[in-house]
Amino acid sequence: MKKFFSVADVDNLKEIVSEALSLKAAPHGNSELGKHRMLGLVFLNPSLRTRLSTQKAAINLGMDVMVMNMDKDGWALETRDGVVMNGTTVEHIREAAAVMGEYCDILGLRSFPTLKDKEADYSEDLFNKFIKFCGVPVISLESATRHPLQSLTDLITITEHKQKDKPKVVLAWAPHVKALPQAVPNSFSEWMCRAQEEGLVDFTIAQPAGYELSEEFSKGAHITTNLDEALADADFVYVKNWSSFKEYGEVYPVAENWLLDNEKLKLTNDAKVMHCLPVRRDLELSSEILDGPNSLVIKEASNRVWAAQVVLKRMLEELKG
Amino acid sequence: MKKFFSVADVDNLKEIVSEALSLKAAPHGNSELGKHRMLGLVFLNPSLRTRLSTQKAAINLGMDVMVMNMDKDGWALETRDGVVMNGTTVEHIREAAAVMGEYCDILGLRSFPTLKDKEADYSEDLFNKFIKFCGVPVISLESATRHPLQSLTDLITITEHKQKDKPKVVLAWAPHVKALPQAVPNSFSEWMCRAQEEGLVDFTIAQPAGYELSEEFSKGAHITTNLDEALADADFVYVKNWSSFKEYGEVYPVAENWLLDNEKLKLTNDAKVMHCLPVRRDLELSSEILDGPNSLVIKEASNRVWAAQVVLKRMLEELKG
Amino acid sequence: MKKFFSVADVDNLKEIVSEALSLKAAPHGNSELGKHRMLGLVFLNPSLRTRLSTQKAAINLGMDVMVMNMDKDGWALETRDGVVMNGTTVEHIREAAAVMGEYCDILGLRSFPTLKDKEADYSEDLFNKFIKFCGVPVISLESATRHPLQSLTDLITITEHKQKDKPKVVLAWAPHVKALPQAVPNSFSEWMCRAQEEGLVDFTIAQPAGYELSEEFSKGAHITTNLDEALADADFVYVKNWSSFKEYGEVYPVAENWLLDNEKLKLTNDAKVMHCLPVRRDLELSSEILDGPNSLVIKEASNRVWAAQVVLKRMLEELKG
Repeated sequence: MKKFFSVADVDNLKEIVSEALSLKAAPHGNSELGKHRMLGLVFLNPSLRTRLSTQKAAINLGMDVMVMNMDKDGWALETRDGVVMNGTTVEHIREAAAVMGEYCDILGLRSFPTLKDKEADYSEDLFNKFIKFCGVPVISLESATRHPLQSLTDLITITEHKQKDKPKVVLAWAPHVKALPQAVPNSFSEWMCRAQEEGLVDFTIAQPAGYELSEEFSKGAHITTNLDEALADADFVYVKNWSSFKEYGEVYPVAENWLLDNEKLKLTNDAKVMHCLPVRRDLELSSEILDGPNSLVIKEASNRVWAAQVVLKRMLEELKG
Repeated sequence: MKKFFSVADVDNLKEIVSEALSLKAAPHGNSELGKHRMLGLVFLNPSLRTRLSTQKAAINLGMDVMVMNMDKDGWALETRDGVVMNGTTVEHIREAAAVMGEYCDILGLRSFPTLKDKEADYSEDLFNKFIKFCGVPVISLESATRHPLQSLTDLITITEHKQKDKPKVVLAWAPHVKALPQAVPNSFSEWMCRAQEEGLVDFTIAQPAGYELSEEFSKGAHITTNLDEALADADFVYVKNWSSFKEYGEVYPVAENWLLDNEKLKLTNDAKVMHCLPVRRDLELSSEILDGPNSLVIKEASNRVWAAQVVLKRMLEELKG
Repeated sequence: MKKFFSVADVDNLKEIVSEALSLKAAPHGNSELGKHRMLGLVFLNPSLRTRLSTQKAAINLGMDVMVMNMDKDGWALETRDGVVMNGTTVEHIREAAAVMGEYCDILGLRSFPTLKDKEADYSEDLFNKFIKFCGVPVISLESATRHPLQSLTDLITITEHKQKDKPKVVLAWAPHVKALPQAVPNSFSEWMCRAQEEGLVDFTIAQPAGYELSEEFSKGAHITTNLDEALADADFVYVKNWSSFKEYGEVYPVAENWLLDNEKLKLTNDAKVMHCLPVRRDLELSSEILDGPNSLVIKEASNRVWAAQVVLKRMLEELKG
C-alpha cells in the first residue's frame, strides 16, 4: 500500500478488517517490522483521537514518530505554481513535502476543507500535491473530502458487533450549531457503498432535503429524507452532522426533529449507535443513548488504533519488500 | 496504586521516599516494567518541569509517552451533565476521558483552578470526573487544590538533606505580583502534616493574616503570622506565594517584609531553602539565597523525576499483577 | 565536544565531514551509544527542518528526545542579573537552564535575534548564559548570529557534490519581503572562510552595498557588490537573503536584479545551487532553478540529519569517556 486516501486504495474490505482484528488480538506481534522506520504526522488542523491512535499504532509496530503541528505556527504553505511568493505563504508545498519525505519513511497528513470553495476542496489539490512531492507512502489523517481511517474503524466496529451476515446500516444526519465538513459522511458512505457491493451490509442514508452528499460518494446507497423510514429495522445507526454540499458549506434550518433518542431507537432493530466523536450531547445525539447499552462510540474510538495499525503494517511490508 | 491525587493515596511516607531514592540510585533498573505500556499526559495548562520530569520517569521505566496539550487548542471540555451542548464546549469529559483511557495504560492530568469560584475549584469536579470516566490509573500533574508530585519531591529532598531525625520545616508565604493558586502550599502542608504525624518532621506555616490556608490542608501544623518567630531554629524553609483562600483568589497588600534574604536566614538553624520553581528573583526569594550554598531549588527540581518514577512504578506493578 | 555553537568548536573540517558521511552510509551503526541518554530540544522560535532532523539524528543514535516549545507559551525568560522580577518574565535563565540540564544529558537551543538591538544580539548573551547555567553540552539550533548545524550540512553537501579539489563557492544575497537575521549567512561565511584556510574551497560573497556582513564572519572572503562578477566560474552558489548589519535590521531598496535564474546561471561553471530553506519561489530564487537539475536544496535539507548526528555522536562519546 503506497497511499491510504480513499476506499479505492483497499483491494478487499473483508481481508483488511480481518487483518485489523488479528492485530487487535496481538498488538505487539509485529514490533520488529517498524524498527528504524520513522512516521511523520503532519497536522494542518487540530487532532486528538487521530493523533493518539495513529501514534500508538506506530509504536505498537516498533516505529518512531515525529509530530508536526503546523496549524498554529503561521507556517502557511503555497500550493500554486507560477506565483511570486511575496505574500503570506512562507514555503511551497514542493519543498515542504519533499523535505518531510527525506526525514520520514511514511507520512500522515491532516488538512480540512475551507467549506468556501467547493471546487478547490473537492479537487484535493493540497493532498494530491503532498503525495506527489513527498515521495513516500502517505496516510490521510482526514482530508478535505474524506476520513478513511475513521471509515475503516467504523467497518471494523460493525463487523465486530453485527448479529447477522448483512446488517442494515443507516447514516443519519444530525443537528449542529456549526457548519461541519462532509469528510466523515462522504467517507463513511463511500466505504459502506463498497461494503454493500461486497455483500457485507445494506446501506441507507437519511438526511433532510438540501443535505444530499455528492453522488461521487453516495452512489449505490438507499437515500431518503425520512428519518423514521430509514430507522425501520436498522441494525446500526451512524449519527453525524454535515453542512450542505449543494449550497456549499451552508447550514439550512431543519424543521423536523433529527436528534436520535430512545424513542426513535424503538423504530430500529435494537440498533447499535455510532458516532466518530467529538459529539455534542443532546444536540447531535441524546445523552440517554450515549450513556446507554446501545452506544458503540467508545469502542469505535478505541478501534482507531487497529485501523491505523493495519494500514501502517501494509505500508511497512511494502517498504521491506 | 490506582490514583495519585493527594497524600491519602500513599500508605507510608517513609517507604515511598525510600523507594524513590532507590530509583534515583538505579534509574534504569526497571526498564522492562513499562514495556508496551503507554502513559498519556494531558495538560489543560502549561507545564515545564512537570512534563519533562514525568516524561523522563516514564522513559526510564521503559514506557512510551504521548503528550496532549489541550490548553491552546480551544478544545473546551464540558463537565456538567444534562446540558445541551450548543455553546462553546466541543466535547464532554465523559467521552474525552473514556477515549484517552482506551489509548493509554496510565493517564496524567494537569488542570489549574479558576481562582474565581472557590466551591467549584475545591470540589475538584473536573479531576474526579476524569478519574471516574477514563477507567485507568490517574496521576495528578497539579489540580485545582493540590500538586502531589511536587510535595512528594519535597519530602524526598528534605529526607536527603536533613541533619537530624525530626527537622523543623517552615512553609513561608512570599510576595508576588500575580494571584497564584493555593495548590502547591495546600499540598505541601497536607504532606508535611502527615509527615509530622509519622514523626518525620516538625511543621510550621507562616503567612500574613488573611492568607490562611484551608484547614482541610493545614490541620496539625503550627500556624503563625510572624515570620521571624517561625524562622527561629528552622532547618528547612519552603518559600511560596499564594493568594487568599478566605477572600478567594484575592491579593491583599502586606506591610511587613516577607522576602527571605540572608539577614532573615540568620534566624534559622542555617536552614536549607526550597521553592517549587519558577521563582521570581528578588520578589519571592532573594538572589543571594538562590545563588548561595543554602539553596536546594535545583536539586529539588531534579528530584521531580524520582517522585514521578516511584508513582509510575507502583501503578505499573498493579497493572501487571 | 562540549559545545557546538560556531566553527571554532570544530578542530578539523575534513574529519567531521568525513565522519558525517560515514554516519549517512550506516545511520544505525551507533544505536547503543545514546541508550539511556536524553536530548532536550528547546525552541524559543519556530522550527521545522531543525527539529525533525535533530530529533531523527538522536533517535538514530538510540537517544530519547524531549521537545520544549517555549515560543508560544509566554514563558518569558529573564536573562539580566540584579533585576527585581516583578514584570513579565516568569523565570530566570539561571533556574530554567539549570533545571533542563538536570533532566537532559545534552541540550539544543534555538533563539532568534531581535534585529533591533545589534549589541545585545551579537553579544549572544542568552546563549552564553544558557550554556553556562545548564551544565551539560549544548548544541546551537540557531542563535542570534549563527546557524552552525546548517553550515556543517552545507559543507557536507558541497563535499559530496564537488567536481574539483577546491571549488569556487559563492554566497549570493537575494531579495525578500521581510527583514531576516544574518545568522545563516554569517555562519556559512565563517565556515567557508575556515574551509578556505584549510584549502577546501575558494570563497566569495556577493551582496549589494549596505548589506556587508560583520567582518567577524567574513574576514578572508572575496567580497563584491557585483553579482555577475561573483558568479563567473562559480561551482556552487548559495542563495540567501539577509537584512543589513550596518544599519542593523534595515532593508534597503536594491535597484539591480539579484534574483538567480537560468540566464544568470550561464555565467557559472554549471553551478549547483543551494539554499537553507524555506525559500520563497521567484522572489529569492527562481522556480526554474529549484525544479531543475542544478538545485541541491532537498539533498541539502536531507543532510541536516547527518550534521546533527555527527555532533551528537561526538558529544555522547565524551559523556561516555
